Amino acid sequence: MNNLSMLTDLYEFSMANGYRQTINDEQGVFDIFFRKVPDNGSFVITAGLEQAINSLQNFHFDQSDVDYLRSLNLFQDNFLNDLLDFKFDCQVSAIPEGTPVFPREPLLTIRGPLLQTQLFETLLLNILNHQSLIATKARRITYSAGDRPVMEFGARRAQGPDSATYGARAAVIGGCTSTSNVLAAEKFGIPSAGTMAHAWVESFPDELTSFEKWAQVYPDNAALLVDTYDVLKSGVPNAIKVFKELKAAGHQPVGIRIDSGDISQLSKAARKMLDDAGLPEVKITASNALDEHVVASLLHEGAPLDNFGIGEKLITSASSPVLSGVYKLAAVIKDGQTIPKIKVSASREKLTLPGLKQVYRLYYPGTQNAFADVIALADESLDQPITVVKANPLATQREQRIEKFDAVPLQVQALDGPKLQTTLPGVFDIQKYSQQMLTQIPAATKRLINPDEFPVYVTTKLAALQESLVEDAAENE
Amino acid sequence: MNNLSMLTDLYEFSMANGYRQTINDEQGVFDIFFRKVPDNGSFVITAGLEQAINSLQNFHFDQSDVDYLRSLNLFQDNFLNDLLDFKFDCQVSAIPEGTPVFPREPLLTIRGPLLQTQLFETLLLNILNHQSLIATKARRITYSAGDRPVMEFGARRAQGPDSATYGARAAVIGGCTSTSNVLAAEKFGIPSAGTMAHAWVESFPDELTSFEKWAQVYPDNAALLVDTYDVLKSGVPNAIKVFKELKAAGHQPVGIRIDSGDISQLSKAARKMLDDAGLPEVKITASNALDEHVVASLLHEGAPLDNFGIGEKLITSASSPVLSGVYKLAAVIKDGQTIPKIKVSASREKLTLPGLKQVYRLYYPGTQNAFADVIALADESLDQPITVVKANPLATQREQRIEKFDAVPLQVQALDGPKLQTTLPGVFDIQKYSQQMLTQIPAATKRLINPDEFPVYVTTKLAALQESLVEDAAENE
Repeated sequence: MNNLSMLTDLYEFSMANGYRQTINDEQGVFDIFFRKVPDNGSFVITAGLEQAINSLQNFHFDQSDVDYLRSLNLFQDNFLNDLLDFKFDCQVSAIPEGTPVFPREPLLTIRGPLLQTQLFETLLLNILNHQSLIATKARRITYSAGDRPVMEFGARRAQGPDSATYGARAAVIGGCTSTSNVLAAEKFGIPSAGTMAHAWVESFPDELTSFEKWAQVYPDNAALLVDTYDVLKSGVPNAIKVFKELKAAGHQPVGIRIDSGDISQLSKAARKMLDDAGLPEVKITASNALDEHVVASLLHEGAPLDNFGIGEKLITSASSPVLSGVYKLAAVIKDGQTIPKIKVSASREKLTLPGLKQVYRLYYPGTQNAFADVIALADESLDQPITVVKANPLATQREQRIEKFDAVPLQVQALDGPKLQTTLPGVFDIQKYSQQMLTQIPAATKRLINPDEFPVYVTTKLAALQESLVEDAAENE
Repeated sequence: MNNLSMLTDLYEFSMANGYRQTINDEQGVFDIFFRKVPDNGSFVITAGLEQAINSLQNFHFDQSDVDYLRSLNLFQDNFLNDLLDFKFDCQVSAIPEGTPVFPREPLLTIRGPLLQTQLFETLLLNILNHQSLIATKARRITYSAGDRPVMEFGARRAQGPDSATYGARAAVIGGCTSTSNVLAAEKFGIPSAGTMAHAWVESFPDELTSFEKWAQVYPDNAALLVDTYDVLKSGVPNAIKVFKELKAAGHQPVGIRIDSGDISQLSKAARKMLDDAGLPEVKITASNALDEHVVASLLHEGAPLDNFGIGEKLITSASSPVLSGVYKLAAVIKDGQTIPKIKVSASREKLTLPGLKQVYRLYYPGTQNAFADVIALADESLDQPITVVKANPLATQREQRIEKFDAVPLQVQALDGPKLQTTLPGVFDIQKYSQQMLTQIPAATKRLINPDEFPVYVTTKLAALQESLVEDAAENE
């Protein structure tokens, strides 16, 4: 990842320069969280922490960047000169990648000089919003596909090169097994996947010749695209001829791909033709504008599909293309004193949670079955029993008592200055961890349509702090 | 832009290697076009050509890339060794950036060694699909805003860093006047815009102090965010106090920004308060989840807004986040002979247009009023009168005679090998050209909802070639 320090909204620089000229000695604490889950789902799969950490570790400004900023005639020299000597000096804690998380939970918390923390807002949100969005969408699609492999095929329809490449990474975190994107495959150690396009078939005098030539070049990787002309009259019969020749020569044919038409009917007919030809091992791949709902329908209709290639609907999360994560001030630290902060607003829904916090996942004692999350102040101990209220400020604020639980903190220390405080696992390790975390939450929470809400609470102490700050704010107007 | 040669679907490498082993002497001709316009609009604004051209000029493979490809055990050594010596050797022609274009028109045509042309598919589509999508969305939003400036504010919700930065570029092509994204501003010479976030206001003991401190640091750039606590009770009155002090000291206050609540009512009340305070020159900016429809509604309701900051709905084209451009083989050239090619399909709608082509915009003679586009074979001359049919294969194929017109070709030569054959204007020059081209097409075509279709025809010669290839294809199955 390049130096992305300039990928920042102008107002971050304006505020940072403003802090430099006014309250330069204060520290800030910012939380990243979201309020709404894409596709009306109940959870988000976190992703992008590795790139977020790398971008913070590499944060610096070149002379040319500072010259550019100087040319805007907005900023004082002391600030611009400090940028040239920028040294990352913050603490970061975060929920590990792959974790299913819920609205209002702080996914990442950063503490450090107010000037610095302000500068990271745009970049951190960009990275975490994007990758978490795609990981979440991939999880929905792989949930529909069950144990059938899902290949990420979206590079050509992604929103720019990074959207393709980091999107492929996030898709694997969300359960995909491979990607067609060679850059992502190389960069993140993901198996690369794909067969041929229609152009190959059209480049030869006829379909059979094109298949035969493919089989000559790739005798052990013969996956054939059968819908250039007519799937059942031409594509599958020609594929069967070539597969039989391959088998006779001791090779193992791989499969066929169907990219258009009524995939349910075509795959059923193709399966029968392949089986009748003594090729039950040949797999059938479907592609063409699939998403979690089409995949579910195809399987519900009994389409004998072995795997799926998913393009634009996955790589852009097309049905819900924004994760609206925000970066909100939770406290300032002045002369060693932590002063909790809150964002009040005309809409009560947008109230933020003040102070340094931790999120806990609560399990039935001695089990791996989670039943709620609780957000607490960092200095609270979570002794049984606890009294909590819903974290959503629009919920009926009835106190609830939870008698017995095992509590596991979700945020871990990630950076102490530029020094890494945690491990950054490979994408398939993250995928495995994610699948394990998902087995711990109730099935009804994971439904694609109308999922149950997983309860997220705050402690009564945190709730009381929030209320007192709402009252203070009314006086500060 | 980095070397993005590896941002390619695996099957492009597989096919290229396959061509190397089989029909290595042939040339390919590929067209990029789309069939559907995002948001059910009638046109797309082309964007991304500069980055597409740069990526082709820089196309090459490092040893580490080739080592990676070798490790896949898929490709022959002759192919891998050729990649190390890759020299771009194709001709590219394209419709200039900023042009309003219509379904089925070849936006870019590339001709060269089949192996090479195959390798560019994914990368070219990624770049052109993304930027054209965002330019088109920006054009819809700036159309709603009329002559009020629209600022691009979406970096934090973009789909990764490139989506933010190249998206900001495309947004300016589509009519935006500035961006909050400092990297995009620096890279493309776009004015950077922005004020302060709620965090600034919360970092001080009260709102008035935060405004006063801002005005101290930015006496000539005091744009104040007035919705941290209560817009009308607190934000605007505090802003007025500070603005009056600034004016008394000889400075010119800039404006206020409203980011939440009922923007229509709030802006009307705020306008009145500012005017009553003798500050009619202070501008009001609206932000917060705006799109073309909300902007139109606000203005319809008479909201006195001077400019707009548009975030996630623009930078992801949220209501329609995919432009499905495709890259289709139009011909192969063998022993100097051009053999036109076609993609047949179960759905007639997906029929492609064979052969080397040119697109013409037809104007009423002696005017700047365009009334249709015609796609012709490259070797046809467009003499009056011409007989044409609709380019959409699903349309009623009735021949139409067009008696009189001025015809202007849209595609221009862009690359001859790595040598640039055209100029690459700056983003604001592209924006100006785009606005001029838009004045030439009928108003009903530019409506946001239920726009008239702009007629796109093909010549009868091209239509006949297409039909004959459909018949041939039936025999090649």
